[in-house]
Amino acid sequence: MSTYDDLMAHERETQALSQVAGRLGWDQETMMPRGAAHQRAEESGAMQAVIHARRTDLRRGEWLAKAEAADDVARAQLRHIRRDYDRLCRVPGDLAVALARLTSRAQGEWAEARANDDVTRFAPVLAEVIALKRQEAAALAEGGDLYDALLEDYEPGMTSALLDEMFAVLRPRLVDLRAQALAGAEAPALAGQYDESAQMRLARDLAQVFGYDGTRGRLDKAVHPFSSGSGDDVRITTRTSTVDPFNCIYSTIHEVGHACYEQAIDPAYALSPLGQGVSMGVHESQSRIYENQLGRSAAFCGWLFKRMQSVFGDIGVADGDAFYRIVNRVHRGYIRTESDEVQYNLHIMLRYDLERALISGDLQAGDLEAAWNDRFEVDFGYPVDRASNGCLQDVHWSVGLFGYFPTYSLGNVYAGCLNKAMQADLPGLEMDLAKGDLSAPTAWLRDKVQRHGGLYEPREVITRACGTEPDAEPLLAYLEQKFAALYPG
Amino acid sequence: MSTYDDLMAHERETQALSQVAGRLGWDQETMMPRGAAHQRAEESGAMQAVIHARRTDLRRGEWLAKAEAADDVARAQLRHIRRDYDRLCRVPGDLAVALARLTSRAQGEWAEARANDDVTRFAPVLAEVIALKRQEAAALAEGGDLYDALLEDYEPGMTSALLDEMFAVLRPRLVDLRAQALAGAEAPALAGQYDESAQMRLARDLAQVFGYDGTRGRLDKAVHPFSSGSGDDVRITTRTSTVDPFNCIYSTIHEVGHACYEQAIDPAYALSPLGQGVSMGVHESQSRIYENQLGRSAAFCGWLFKRMQSVFGDIGVADGDAFYRIVNRVHRGYIRTESDEVQYNLHIMLRYDLERALISGDLQAGDLEAAWNDRFEVDFGYPVDRASNGCLQDVHWSVGLFGYFPTYSLGNVYAGCLNKAMQADLPGLEMDLAKGDLSAPTAWLRDKVQRHGGLYEPREVITRACGTEPDAEPLLAYLEQKFAALYPG
Repeated sequence: MSTYDDLMAHERETQALSQVAGRLGWDQETMMPRGAAHQRAEESGAMQAVIHARRTDLRRGEWLAKAEAADDVARAQLRHIRRDYDRLCRVPGDLAVALARLTSRAQGEWAEARANDDVTRFAPVLAEVIALKRQEAAALAEGGDLYDALLEDYEPGMTSALLDEMFAVLRPRLVDLRAQALAGAEAPALAGQYDESAQMRLARDLAQVFGYDGTRGRLDKAVHPFSSGSGDDVRITTRTSTVDPFNCIYSTIHEVGHACYEQAIDPAYALSPLGQGVSMGVHESQSRIYENQLGRSAAFCGWLFKRMQSVFGDIGVADGDAFYRIVNRVHRGYIRTESDEVQYNLHIMLRYDLERALISGDLQAGDLEAAWNDRFEVDFGYPVDRASNGCLQDVHWSVGLFGYFPTYSLGNVYAGCLNKAMQADLPGLEMDLAKGDLSAPTAWLRDKVQRHGGLYEPREVITRACGTEPDAEPLLAYLEQKFAALYPG
Repeated sequence: MSTYDDLMAHERETQALSQVAGRLGWDQETMMPRGAAHQRAEESGAMQAVIHARRTDLRRGEWLAKAEAADDVARAQLRHIRRDYDRLCRVPGDLAVALARLTSRAQGEWAEARANDDVTRFAPVLAEVIALKRQEAAALAEGGDLYDALLEDYEPGMTSALLDEMFAVLRPRLVDLRAQALAGAEAPALAGQYDESAQMRLARDLAQVFGYDGTRGRLDKAVHPFSSGSGDDVRITTRTSTVDPFNCIYSTIHEVGHACYEQAIDPAYALSPLGQGVSMGVHESQSRIYENQLGRSAAFCGWLFKRMQSVFGDIGVADGDAFYRIVNRVHRGYIRTESDEVQYNLHIMLRYDLERALISGDLQAGDLEAAWNDRFEVDFGYPVDRASNGCLQDVHWSVGLFGYFPTYSLGNVYAGCLNKAMQADLPGLEMDLAKGDLSAPTAWLRDKVQRHGGLYEPREVITRACGTEPDAEPLLAYLEQKFAALYPG
C-alpha cells in the first residue's frame, strides 16, 4: 500500500464513524425516547471523542506530508484532508474544549431567553461566545481577516469581500421589490384544515417526484426539517401543521434538494472526503432551486394545485393562478424561516452585517438588539415587535455558528445562476413542470453539480455548471420578473 | 484520579460506544433503508474496530494489574473487566479476524441452504466454523474442557457438568409429559383474522401493563423480535401475523421481560460493566417468567381473554378457560421458536447434546442431519420432515454461537425457581393477575434480580433471590402440574 492508500483507508473508517454519529443525531430528532437524553449526550460525546482523536491523529499529518496524488481526484481528496487537518492543528485543544462547553451552555441560555423575550439574559453569554470565537478565528486566520477565517469552515474559498460585492447589488433592489410587494393589500393565504397523515402521504409522493431515492433513505417527522447522511443512507425529515400544508410540502421539497445532492454523488467517492456536498452554499443552491425555482414556479404550481385537490378535496382556491399567488405571497413577518423569496435574503444580509461587526469588535453583544431593530425597520419597512421575533429568533450564534448565515443567500445566488443555465439548456422545462415531470431538471442538476461531490471548489462547481462566474444578477432578474408580475403595484 | 478511576472512565466511554453500536443494530432491523446495507456493513465494521481496539488497549491490562477495589461494587466491576480482557488476550487476533470473516460467509451459506433444504451445501462451511471454534475454545480453555470454555462467554461460571445434571432430570419427565399431552386429539388453535394495527396497540398496552417504561424505550416492528440497549434507551421489537395474534402478544411480553431487566438496573451502574444483565441465562429467566409463568397463567389469561374481546370483538372462543387452553396448547411442530412450554426444552437439550459432540469431535458436520433426525424422533415422537424443519432451522451455529443454546433452558429453570419463590412471597398474586395487575410480581423481580445488574455471578443472583441453589425441580413441578391438568390423558 502506498502512503496515499494508508491515508485514504484511515479516512474511510473516519467517514464511516461520522456517518454513524450523524445517524445518532437523526435518531435523536426522530426516534429517541425522551428519557434517553442524558445517556445520549454521553454516547454522542464518546463518538465525537473517537472521531476527533482520529482527525487529529499525528499519523494523518505524516501521511499528508508524504502522500502523492496520482490524478485530479486524489489531488482533491488530499486538498480536503489537508484543509481539515490544518484547521484542527491551528486551534488549541483547550480552546476547542472550552468552546464546546460554552456553546452547550449558551444554547440553553438562548432557549430560555427566547422563551421569555429577555435579551439581557442572553447578552452576557453571547459576549463570552464571541470572545472565544474571536480567539478561534485569530488562530485560524494567522494574520488574515477574522470573519473570513470563520466563513472558510462553511464555504471554502469565499471571502467577505466577494460577499460584500454580491450583497451590495442584492440589497437595494430587494428592498425596492419588498416595498413594491407590500405596498398594496396583503395577498390572501390558504384557509382550512388539512389532515396531517394526508400531508405525509403527499410529502412522500413529492419526494419521489423530485427524484429522492426512497430505497436509500427515508422520510420521517421531526420538529425541524433536516437532511442527514451521505451515500446510500440519506434520511430526511419534515413537519406538518393542520393549517399550513405548504410548510410540509416546501420543507419536504427543500430537504429533498439537499438529500438528492448527497444521493447523486459519484459512488466512487463513497466514504471519502469527496463523498459529501462540497459546501453549505452549494448545498443550499440545490435545496433552493428544488424548492423555489422549480417547486414554486407557475407551471409546477398548476400541477400541484390539482394534486392538492385530489388529496384534500376542495381547498377553497379558485384556480391554478390563484394557487400560484398564494404559494408565492409576500407577507409581513419577522421570522427568517417563514419568509418568502423576496424578503429571505434581506433577513440574511442583516445577520451577515451584524455578525461581521460582532466578530470585528465594532458591535458589542449588549448593543445587538438595538442594531438589529434599527436595521430591520430600514430593510423591511416595519418595526420588530419583540426580541423572540428579532435578534433572539435563531439558534446559530448561541452555538458558535458565525460565518454560516451568508451561505443561505449564497445558495440563493447560486440557485439563480444554475436556474438561468438550466432554462437555457432545457427548452421544454415549463411543459415538463406543468405535468409534474421533474426528471429533466433533476437530471441536469445531478450531471452539472451533484455527482461531483467535493471534486471541485465550491465556486468552481457553479462556474463549470453555468459556463460563467457566479453573480447575483440572474437571481435578481428572476425575482424581479416573477414578483413584478405578481405585484404589479 | 486513582488507577481504578482511570480504568472506569475508559470503560464508561467504551460502554457508551457499545450502546451506539447496539443502536445501529436496532436501526438496521427497524429503520434502515434497504439500499443502505452495503454502506452499513462498513459503518458497523468501523464501530466494531474502534470498540475492539479499546477493549484490547494495553493500558487496560496495566490499569487492571494496579487497580484496587474499595468495595464489593468495585470488586465486581474489576471481575467483569478482567474476564473480558483475559478472554481477548487469549484468542490470537488473526483467529478472531478469521472467525469473523468465516461466520459472515457461513451465515449466507446457511440462509441459502435452509431456503433449499440442502444440508450438503451447509455441511462443509459448518465443518470450517467448528474447526475454528475448536481452536478458539482451546485458546480459551488453557487445558480445560473446550465446550465449557465457549459456554463461559454466555453464562459465566456454568459448566457442562452442571447442565448435564440438570438436563438428566428434565429430559425424561418432559418426554413423558410431551407424550401425555400429544396422546389425544390435538388441542384447537385460534381461528379468524386479526387486524395488525390493533395488535400493535394491544402490544403497547401490554408492554405498559408488564412495567416497560415507554419514556426510556420504544416498541417497533421487526422480522425477529428482540430487545436492544441498556439503561435509559432500551428498545424492543415485535411482529404481527393476521392469523396468529399470540405471536405478537407473547413475543412482546417476552421482550418486555428482557427490557425491564435492563431498565431496572441500578442507575449507579449505568455505562459500566455492571450496567447490563449478568448472563444470557438470567436474562432469559426474566423474559420467560414474564411470558410463561405470568403471561400464560390461567389467571392472567382470563383477563387477557376479555381484553382481546374488547380489542378484536368476538374471537370465537367460548370463555376464559377455553382461551387458556388455546394459549397453552401443546402441538406437533418442528420449530424451536414456535414451540410450547412442554416441548421447548426438548428442542434445547437436543441442540446442546449435538453441539457438545460437534465441539468435542465426536460428531462430524456431515453426520449432523442424521444425528438430529434420530434424536428428534426419540424425544418428540414424530419424524422430521425436511432439513429446514430440522438441523437447518437455527442461525446460531452458522455464526459461531456454540454454548449459547443451553442458556435458553437455563433461563427456564431459573424462571421455575424464581416463580416458586415469588409465589411464596406474594399470596395475592393470582388475584392480581386476574385483574391484569402485574405491579407486585414485576416489583418483586426488580428487587430480587433486576436491579443488581452484574453485581453478583449468575447462579448467585438466583440463589439470593430464591434462598436456595437453583435446580430443575420447581420448573418440572410447575409444568407437570399445569399440563397434567390441561391434558389429563
